[in-house]
Amino acid sequence: MLLRLPFLLFQSNEQCFGAGTPNCKVAIVMARDKNTSASRYKQHSMIIVPMDTPGVKLIRPLSVFGYFDHFHGGHFEVHFDNVQVPVSNLLLGEGRGFEIAQGRLGPGRIHHCMRSIGAAEVALKILCERAAQRTSFGKKLYHHEVVAHWIAECRIAIEQARLLTLKAASHIDTLGNKAARKEVSMIKVVAPRAVLKVIDCAIQVCGAAGFCEDFPLAEMFAYMRTLRIADGPDEVHLSTIAKMELLEQAKQLRAHL
Amino acid sequence: MLLRLPFLLFQSNEQCFGAGTPNCKVAIVMARDKNTSASRYKQHSMIIVPMDTPGVKLIRPLSVFGYFDHFHGGHFEVHFDNVQVPVSNLLLGEGRGFEIAQGRLGPGRIHHCMRSIGAAEVALKILCERAAQRTSFGKKLYHHEVVAHWIAECRIAIEQARLLTLKAASHIDTLGNKAARKEVSMIKVVAPRAVLKVIDCAIQVCGAAGFCEDFPLAEMFAYMRTLRIADGPDEVHLSTIAKMELLEQAKQLRAHL
Amino acid sequence: MLLRLPFLLFQSNEQCFGAGTPNCKVAIVMARDKNTSASRYKQHSMIIVPMDTPGVKLIRPLSVFGYFDHFHGGHFEVHFDNVQVPVSNLLLGEGRGFEIAQGRLGPGRIHHCMRSIGAAEVALKILCERAAQRTSFGKKLYHHEVVAHWIAECRIAIEQARLLTLKAASHIDTLGNKAARKEVSMIKVVAPRAVLKVIDCAIQVCGAAGFCEDFPLAEMFAYMRTLRIADGPDEVHLSTIAKMELLEQAKQLRAHL
Amino acid sequence: MLLRLPFLLFQSNEQCFGAGTPNCKVAIVMARDKNTSASRYKQHSMIIVPMDTPGVKLIRPLSVFGYFDHFHGGHFEVHFDNVQVPVSNLLLGEGRGFEIAQGRLGPGRIHHCMRSIGAAEVALKILCERAAQRTSFGKKLYHHEVVAHWIAECRIAIEQARLLTLKAASHIDTLGNKAARKEVSMIKVVAPRAVLKVIDCAIQVCGAAGFCEDFPLAEMFAYMRTLRIADGPDEVHLSTIAKMELLEQAKQLRAHL
Repeated sequence: MLLRLPFLLFQSNEQCFGAGTPNCKVAIVMARDKNTSASRYKQHSMIIVPMDTPGVKLIRPLSVFGYFDHFHGGHFEVHFDNVQVPVSNLLLGEGRGFEIAQGRLGPGRIHHCMRSIGAAEVALKILCERAAQRTSFGKKLYHHEVVAHWIAECRIAIEQARLLTLKAASHIDTLGNKAARKEVSMIKVVAPRAVLKVIDCAIQVCGAAGFCEDFPLAEMFAYMRTLRIADGPDEVHLSTIAKMELLEQAKQLRAHL
Repeated sequence: MLLRLPFLLFQSNEQCFGAGTPNCKVAIVMARDKNTSASRYKQHSMIIVPMDTPGVKLIRPLSVFGYFDHFHGGHFEVHFDNVQVPVSNLLLGEGRGFEIAQGRLGPGRIHHCMRSIGAAEVALKILCERAAQRTSFGKKLYHHEVVAHWIAECRIAIEQARLLTLKAASHIDTLGNKAARKEVSMIKVVAPRAVLKVIDCAIQVCGAAGFCEDFPLAEMFAYMRTLRIADGPDEVHLSTIAKMELLEQAKQLRAHL
Repeated sequence: MLLRLPFLLFQSNEQCFGAGTPNCKVAIVMARDKNTSASRYKQHSMIIVPMDTPGVKLIRPLSVFGYFDHFHGGHFEVHFDNVQVPVSNLLLGEGRGFEIAQGRLGPGRIHHCMRSIGAAEVALKILCERAAQRTSFGKKLYHHEVVAHWIAECRIAIEQARLLTLKAASHIDTLGNKAARKEVSMIKVVAPRAVLKVIDCAIQVCGAAGFCEDFPLAEMFAYMRTLRIADGPDEVHLSTIAKMELLEQAKQLRAHL
Repeated sequence: MLLRLPFLLFQSNEQCFGAGTPNCKVAIVMARDKNTSASRYKQHSMIIVPMDTPGVKLIRPLSVFGYFDHFHGGHFEVHFDNVQVPVSNLLLGEGRGFEIAQGRLGPGRIHHCMRSIGAAEVALKILCERAAQRTSFGKKLYHHEVVAHWIAECRIAIEQARLLTLKAASHIDTLGNKAARKEVSMIKVVAPRAVLKVIDCAIQVCGAAGFCEDFPLAEMFAYMRTLRIADGPDEVHLSTIAKMELLEQAKQLRAHL
């Protein structure tokens, strides 16, 4: 809750990424003012909060499929208990948090997708190398037709995800975030799905080794699985795509009347 | 069997497309010479055979999922019984049938894929219109979340198939048929799969009407299902893609040594 | 529309199964009384209508994926234009059509599922025989690992569909139609899905021959595809299952409190 | 390598389950004699090795998707370097390791499947509870049709996996391990697949919370994913099922001649 005083006062329990590293000096908190009469898109503010502000407490680290991601500081449950910061810590202005978030969501989402595709390429490389090294039932794994078809399906999935991502990126560049919304939602669904499929095949080809830290596959899987929820779960994006498709179909229909 | 005489003499039982229309005046027969010692790629010849040549018999029409495709003359079982034509009816030259076929397969396959994508657009249009007209359980079909998500998944499938087809087409144009082989195989797998999925969803939304001739959906489905076999079944293309992927991965690996 | 007069008078346009055979002497028409104030479950009546009653018109046969099913008389569009029959033609009683329909839906649906499983066995038999006869790339089709895995997946799908159908049948026998509703909905979704998958694999193994009348596969596919809509589309059954599952989970939860 | 001396001497690098707990006093090592001329099914022996035998070294713990499973002692890389134990530590007899393993594989696999189904029930319970507690876009999650259909699909998958497991168990009980091989392979493929699907849906419904230790879902997923590899990867089981199906189909065919 954000109170409009000479200073900002609020409290909240959040899951924060990177909070566990000593390099983390400030948090950007997105707070909603429950007392405002502003429209639902103007109730949120983003506020810079130094981590040593009284009332900020790191409660516990949270794992993702067992990984704590210590290198990046991990996910932490953080409580903000009557935290008070100067008004000047507001980013952009009061009630403009949603606007800031929207501005970065298109580029942020496509950034995740691009990295997904890179991860998928790594996984497919590992799959192919392993399939060339290991033998079962008297022949190399890639001579097993089923494994070969996995390789083909993985390449197809990656190519299709890459092309759609490039199209979305081109729309962002040339038409802007808003006009690219449908394409961004499409890749946000497609890219994690493609990479999860590739990693899953790679794990299966690597056998038990694929689960442990000798390969990056299991950790990649864990991280990529979060992308089906982070920045909007698949289901919200599918509903967005459907809505926009129906509008476009209706427009075309009217144009023919 | 092709005998090298002053004339060409052969026999065969074939399934021929379009043979049932009176406009069909000639067949192009691909015949293999069983007596040749030529390499396996130089044993086939293509021969123009007028349909009124003695020994050419239309045996019976063949349906595809119950459709006889009368408009295009339909598929026919045709027997060639000791058929004899002048040597000048040979296309390009003896033993060059495989070469001719290879030359047209890339463009032929992409042509099928392009039409698939057009068909998928038609099916999605029908799906959306029907979902906007019909009501069940008190709301329009497109307000059913499951139907909405089908619409989204269909659009995603079409976009991805289209982009990969455009990439393959661009490769054919700029790099040639041979260099585009992997991309052509990829779309040959992807495009029929995408369109079949879209048509299947559209049928489900149209209900029983979707099966009959009041909508083009069932006939489109029948035709598109043949594309998973025609010009090489999916499985052959997947094996081709896998082989080329493994070669490329091996090349990259060596480049890093 | 059903008018309550000394006789029954109604009109409607329907799609009727079997109407095209001369053996078809009567239709059972399910008519809804638009003027009644009865509850929504008591607005429908079933009426025996001799096909030679004035006002009954066979408009046209309707194909299902191109098949007209002449043997069983086919599907017909039938118009009922101010058709008048004696009140004694009412089945069971006015407003009891829904009750009659409900009584037969459980057994009717399971009957379809049982036949689906039989069809799936036929298709798998054809698949295995063909895979044992044909050779590609120098080995029998069933030595292609991908085809072998299709065979395994088909057997798995059939076994699972059969066991669930047997469970549903046992529930109907021992607990009655109503108590078996969830199981019946489950097999109504599962059985057509399983058989369509098996037929699709069988077609792919048979190649182009699988589409034509030399094999029963394409016609079986067409018929089985209608089962995903007939007697309630998959989506309605899935919603029913979910509702009952949620009720049971809630009951268990309360039992633990 | 096993040497036949007054004592057994061997060396090996293994991945051992449970090796990290102080309660682990002995390992059962399956060793292959490379010098034997015995048939391939009689080259392995099982040997009891006290963990404090000289030459036994715990190298490092191995994680599974980030989990170290400390409670059960975890997976460890263990080296056996010229380890020497009395001949009396041989289980059953020299060269009978394969026989011992085969004897327990049927019951062992079905045991995994039974626990999978239990895990799937837990995951579905969590899914339903969460879907009843949380709201998005103004309605409870289970009122979102897509979530409702997940619940239905999960129930269907669990029911089918359970029935097939019961059938396999009944075959083991009444016909013995060997006669139940096909059914055991079928559930070994089906059960992990079903439970992974249910857990994945449950995670998606729980959102980011589903990944962390506040729910058992992510850890269950990690463990269940290993079952697609442990005790024979899916692909080996599918090949086994196909082989047995083809034999049965061939037998039936001959019976009809």
